[in-house]
Amino acid sequence: MGGRIEELVETKEMDSRSLSSSNRTNLPYKVGVPPKEKWWNEFNNRLKETFFADDPLRSFKDQSKSRKFVLGLQAVFPIFEWGRRYNLAKFKGDLIAGLTIASLCIPQDIGYARLANLAPQYGLYSSFVPPLIYAFMGSSRDIAIGPVAVVSLLLGTLLQNEIDPVQNAFEYRRLAFTATFFAGITQATLGILRLGFLIDFLSHAAVVGFMAGAAITIALQQLKGFLGIKKFTKNTDIVSVMNSVFSSAHHGWNWQTILIGATFLVFLLFAKYIGKKNKKFFWIPAIAPLISVVLSTFFVYITHAEEKGVQIVKHIEKGINPISVNEIFFTGDYLMKGVRIGIVAGMVALTEAVAIGRTFASMKDYNIDGNKEMVALGAMNVAGSMTSCYVATGSFSRSAVNYMAGCETAVSNIIMSIVVFLTLQFITPLFEYTPNAILASIIISAVLGLIDIDAAILIWKIDKFDFVACMGAFFGVVFASVEIGLLIAVSISFAKLLLQVTRPRTALLGKIPRTHVYRNIQQYPEASKVPGVLIIRVDSAIYFSNSNYIRERILRWLTDEEEQLKAANLPQIQYLIVEMSPVTDIDTSGIHALEELHRSLQKRSVELVLANPGPVVMDKLYTSKFANSIGEDKIFLTVADAIQTCSPKFADEV
Amino acid sequence: MGGRIEELVETKEMDSRSLSSSNRTNLPYKVGVPPKEKWWNEFNNRLKETFFADDPLRSFKDQSKSRKFVLGLQAVFPIFEWGRRYNLAKFKGDLIAGLTIASLCIPQDIGYARLANLAPQYGLYSSFVPPLIYAFMGSSRDIAIGPVAVVSLLLGTLLQNEIDPVQNAFEYRRLAFTATFFAGITQATLGILRLGFLIDFLSHAAVVGFMAGAAITIALQQLKGFLGIKKFTKNTDIVSVMNSVFSSAHHGWNWQTILIGATFLVFLLFAKYIGKKNKKFFWIPAIAPLISVVLSTFFVYITHAEEKGVQIVKHIEKGINPISVNEIFFTGDYLMKGVRIGIVAGMVALTEAVAIGRTFASMKDYNIDGNKEMVALGAMNVAGSMTSCYVATGSFSRSAVNYMAGCETAVSNIIMSIVVFLTLQFITPLFEYTPNAILASIIISAVLGLIDIDAAILIWKIDKFDFVACMGAFFGVVFASVEIGLLIAVSISFAKLLLQVTRPRTALLGKIPRTHVYRNIQQYPEASKVPGVLIIRVDSAIYFSNSNYIRERILRWLTDEEEQLKAANLPQIQYLIVEMSPVTDIDTSGIHALEELHRSLQKRSVELVLANPGPVVMDKLYTSKFANSIGEDKIFLTVADAIQTCSPKFADEV
Repeated sequence: MGGRIEELVETKEMDSRSLSSSNRTNLPYKVGVPPKEKWWNEFNNRLKETFFADDPLRSFKDQSKSRKFVLGLQAVFPIFEWGRRYNLAKFKGDLIAGLTIASLCIPQDIGYARLANLAPQYGLYSSFVPPLIYAFMGSSRDIAIGPVAVVSLLLGTLLQNEIDPVQNAFEYRRLAFTATFFAGITQATLGILRLGFLIDFLSHAAVVGFMAGAAITIALQQLKGFLGIKKFTKNTDIVSVMNSVFSSAHHGWNWQTILIGATFLVFLLFAKYIGKKNKKFFWIPAIAPLISVVLSTFFVYITHAEEKGVQIVKHIEKGINPISVNEIFFTGDYLMKGVRIGIVAGMVALTEAVAIGRTFASMKDYNIDGNKEMVALGAMNVAGSMTSCYVATGSFSRSAVNYMAGCETAVSNIIMSIVVFLTLQFITPLFEYTPNAILASIIISAVLGLIDIDAAILIWKIDKFDFVACMGAFFGVVFASVEIGLLIAVSISFAKLLLQVTRPRTALLGKIPRTHVYRNIQQYPEASKVPGVLIIRVDSAIYFSNSNYIRERILRWLTDEEEQLKAANLPQIQYLIVEMSPVTDIDTSGIHALEELHRSLQKRSVELVLANPGPVVMDKLYTSKFANSIGEDKIFLTVADAIQTCSPKFADEV
Repeated sequence: MGGRIEELVETKEMDSRSLSSSNRTNLPYKVGVPPKEKWWNEFNNRLKETFFADDPLRSFKDQSKSRKFVLGLQAVFPIFEWGRRYNLAKFKGDLIAGLTIASLCIPQDIGYARLANLAPQYGLYSSFVPPLIYAFMGSSRDIAIGPVAVVSLLLGTLLQNEIDPVQNAFEYRRLAFTATFFAGITQATLGILRLGFLIDFLSHAAVVGFMAGAAITIALQQLKGFLGIKKFTKNTDIVSVMNSVFSSAHHGWNWQTILIGATFLVFLLFAKYIGKKNKKFFWIPAIAPLISVVLSTFFVYITHAEEKGVQIVKHIEKGINPISVNEIFFTGDYLMKGVRIGIVAGMVALTEAVAIGRTFASMKDYNIDGNKEMVALGAMNVAGSMTSCYVATGSFSRSAVNYMAGCETAVSNIIMSIVVFLTLQFITPLFEYTPNAILASIIISAVLGLIDIDAAILIWKIDKFDFVACMGAFFGVVFASVEIGLLIAVSISFAKLLLQVTRPRTALLGKIPRTHVYRNIQQYPEASKVPGVLIIRVDSAIYFSNSNYIRERILRWLTDEEEQLKAANLPQIQYLIVEMSPVTDIDTSGIHALEELHRSLQKRSVELVLANPGPVVMDKLYTSKFANSIGEDKIFLTVADAIQTCSPKFADEV
C-alpha cells in the first residue's frame, strides 16, 4: 500500500530538476531532487552542528542586556542558577552524601598521593581546593571530585620518567604542579574551543580495557606496602613487579604487615560484598576504609608494631594547602615536559570525568554540556596547581557512593572539602601510626571496582573488533606501561574508525518470492536473483576513503557473477542496479568512482542503474552532471521500479 | 503494494529470536533476526575484506603445483601472462607510443632533474632503468614511467633541507639515492602488507589542490632559467621567489634568454592548444618540446648566444647509468634522514602512479591490483636507486600521450627506455648548447596541465568541505612549501573523515498526507507531525565516535519539540520513534548510548520505539539484551507500523 501511494505523492513534489522514467515504463514514479541550498547556509549549518551541536546560545536569544549578563554568569557559574532553588531538603541529602564521600576520600587520598610519588598531604590538598571550584562551575550534580587512582598512577609514571621523586623530591613536586597546571589549561582550552567531542575518540571498549589494566597495575604496586617490601622496582609492568616481589620473598617480607593488611583487606572486601548484596547498605563499604584506618592506627599505636618492621605513614604535614604558583615551571626545559605530561594526564582525567558526568546525568535525566564541563574541570585544576594540588577529576567509586547517599547538588563536594579542610587543620597528626599496609588494602579494594568483566564479556559478544581494542589496551598497560596501554587504546580506536569508513559492507540483493521486495540473499537464501540483472546494495556513504574499494568490490561482484553464469551458460548480466538507500552522502571521489564504474560497465555493455538515492546524493548526482551522463531514466525510486524497467516480465511474476 | 506483501512474507522467515507486535496491533509484521554467525568466521571475513578485498588468491584455488608456480610467476611478472598473447599488431601500437613518449620525456627529464637539484643525466638515467623493470612487473598498460615534476620538486626541497646540493653535490646525490631506495622499500612494503588502501586517505580534492599548488611553485622556479637570473632563492614559496625575481630585475635579467624562452613557450602553448582542439593532433604537443630543443640548440650553436649570457646546459655525462649501490647510506645519521624523505616521496609518487593506473584501467576496463602495482613500483625504485636513478613514477602528461598514441602494453615503456638508452650512449653531447630557457619553457608548459580548474570548480559545487581541503593544500604549497601543503592536505582529509563519523545527520520525520510514508519534514514541508509522537531518523552507523552526539541530538530534538508543544499547549510527546534504516552498524558505545537514551526517556515518561533496524543492528540489540529492556514489542519493521501502535487513529487517517 505505502509504496504505491508514496510514489503517487512524491510525483507531486518533484521540482524542475526531478526526472521521469515514464518513457521507459508505465509506472510514473519520480525521485525528488531537493531545492538547492545557499552554500554558506549549508556550510554554516555544518560548522554549527560540529562545534555548537548543543546550540549553547539558544537561551540567550532575544533577551535583554541585563538578562543576558545574568544568563552568561549562570552559564559560567551554574551555582547561581541552581543555587536560587536550593533548600533545606536538598541540603540534608547533600550533607549526608558529603560526609560519606569525605570518609571515603580521606584514606583514599593518602594512598593515591603515594601512587603519584607525592607525600600523603598532597592527596588531601587535592580534595580541598578543586571540589570547591568545581561546585561553583561544574554542571554535574553527582560527580565526586578529587584525586583518582588511574590518573595518580599515570601522573606518577610519567613524572618519574623525568625526575627521580626520591633523590629530587622538590623538583619532582614542581614538575607535578606544572603538569597539573597544563592539564587544566588543556581541559579548559578543549572546552572553550568546543573541541569536547575529541575525547569521544577514545572508545568505550578501549577505556574498559585501559581501566582494568590500570587497576591490576595499581594493585600490584600495592604489594610493596602490603608485604612490607623495602626495595621495590620503579617499573609498573607485571613482569618486573613480580620479579622484585619474589626476589625479596625470603628476607624482604614482613609477616606482621601482611597479617594486618590481609585482615583488613578481607574486612573491606566483605563490606564491599554487603554493599553489593543490598543497595541500602551502600554506606558500609563507604565508611569501612575510615574504620579500618582508625582501628589499625590504634592497634599499631598500642602494640608499637612499627618497631617490628610494620611501615607506617609517620608524618603528614599539618595545615591547609600552601601556595605553589611560584613553584610552577614557566620557563626552562622542564616547561615542555610539564606541558606534554599535562596534556596526557589532562585528557585521561577528562575522559573519566565526562564519562561519569554523562552516566549520572542520564540516570537523573539532566543535561551536561560537555564543553562547559571541561572548562570547569580545567579551571579547577589550574587553581589546584597554584595551591599544591595535583590533577584531580571525578572518581568512579566516590561518585557512585555520592549518588547512592542521595546527593542533590554539587554542595556535597563543598561539604566533603570542608571535612578535608578540618582534617588537614586538626587531625592529620593522628595518621602518624597508620600502617601503609592498610592504605595498600584500601587502594586494592578500591581499584578492584575498576575491573568490569561483565562489560568486557558484553563487548566480546557485541563487537569482536572492540574486544581487540579492549584487550590491546589491557595488556598494553599490564605488560608494558600505562602510556603504552593508552597509546594502543587510542590507535586501535582510530584504526576501527578508519576501517569502517574504508571497508563498508556491500550486499547482493534478490527478489523475495511472491513480492516486489529485494533483500540480501545471504540473509534470505530463498530470495531469487533476477536473470540478466545484478542488484548490489552499498551500506555506507561513499567518500574518498572507500570510493575505490566500493567501485572495485562492485566490479568483483559482477565478475564473479558473470563467471558463474558463463559456467552454467545462462544469459549474461545486462543491468547492474546499485541500491543506494543507505548511501547517506557522496563526495567528489565518490562521484568519480561512480563515473569510472559507469565507464567500465559500458565497456562490458552492462547498464548502470541507481535505485533510491537520498536527497543529498541526488543533489550531487545532478550538480556533477553524472545523472545526465548515465541518463536520468536510469535512476529509480525503488529497486522494484528499476526491475520493472530492466526485466518487466520477471517483475510481474508474483 | 510492495510494503504490504513484504511484511506478509517476512513474517514467514522470522527465526526463533524474532519478535511480534501483534499483541499491540492487528498488523502481524515481524522484524527478522539473522541467525548468529561463528565469531571466527565473522572476524576472518572482516580481515579478508580489509586486506584481501580483491581476493588475490582466487585464481590459485584447486590448481596443480606446477600451475600454481606458473600463476605465481605471472602474478609477480605479469609480462609472462600478457606476453604470451603479444603480437605484431600490438607491437606497432607500442612502438609508435613508445617513440612519442620518448621524444616527450627526454627534454622533460633533463628539466626535472634540475628540480631535484641533480645533474641533467640523472633525469635520463631515471627514464632508462625503472621503465624496464616496470614493464616486467607492472599491471598497467598505459602508464608512462619516469621522473615527474611534482616528485622531483618535493624530493629536491626535502633533500636540500639536509644537504646543500651545490657545496656538497656528492653527499647530496648519495642522500638522493638513499631516499629513492627507501621510497621503493616503502612502496613495496605497503604492497606486500596489503596496506594499499592507505593511500586512499589522501582525498581527491586534496590531491587536486596539491598538484595545482605544486604546478605554480614549479612554474615560478622556472623563472630563474626563463629570465636568466644567476642568484636565485632556495625557498619555493611565492613570496621569496617573487622577491628574488624583482630584486634582480634591472641587472639580473637577460633579454636574449627571455626572447628565446618566450618564443618557444608561445610555440609550445600553441602546440598544446592544437592538441586540445583536435585529439588526432595529440602528437603535435608531444613532439613540440623535442623540436624546440633541437631548433633552439642549433640556433644558439650558430649565434653563439651563450656568450651573450644565455645560459646553456653545457655538459651532460655520456653513457648509461653507473652503479650506485655503494653510494646509498646504509649507516650513519643520513640513513634516518634518507628513510624519512624516502617515505614521504614514496607515498606521493605512489598516489600519483596509482591514480593514473586506475584512471586508464577504467577507460579500457581492465583491473589493476593496487597492492601488486605498489610492489612493482617499489621494486623499480629500489633497482633505480642502485643504478643512479632518483624516484620515478607514472607521469600524468606522458601517460595520456602514451594512451592517445595507442599503446597496447607496457612494451611502450621498453621502447621508450631503449630510445633513452641510445640517447645516453650517443647524442647527449649534442645537448651542450641547449639553452636552459627552453627547458624552463618546456617545464612551464608541462606543469600547467597539472592545474585542473574545472575539477576545483566541480569540487566547490559538490562538496564545500572538500573545497576547503583543496584550497588548504593549494595555498599551503604556494605560500609555505611542498611539505606543508602535503601536511595540510592529509590532515584536512583526515579531519573530514573523522567529522563524518562524529557528526552524522539526523532528521525529523513527518507523515506525508494521504500515505503511510514518513519523510524528512525539511525536505517535505507538507509532511505532518504525528501528535504525541516524535519520529527521528539517524543517518549513520552508531559508533563510539558519534554515539554521545546522536544521543544528545535526539534529546535536543525532543526538548525543542516539547517546548514548542508547551507554548502551543498541545499534548506532550508520548512516543519517540527512531527510524534506523540507515544505521548499518552499532557498537558497544552505541548500545550504551541507546540505553542512556532509554533511561532519560523513561524519566520523561516518553516511550522509546525503534523502526526497521538492519540485521547487524538487530543481532546486537539482542546480544546486548537491549531489545528485551525496551520491550521487543517496541521494535517495528517500518515507521508506519510503529505509528499504527503508537497512535492508531492518526495512522488510519489517509
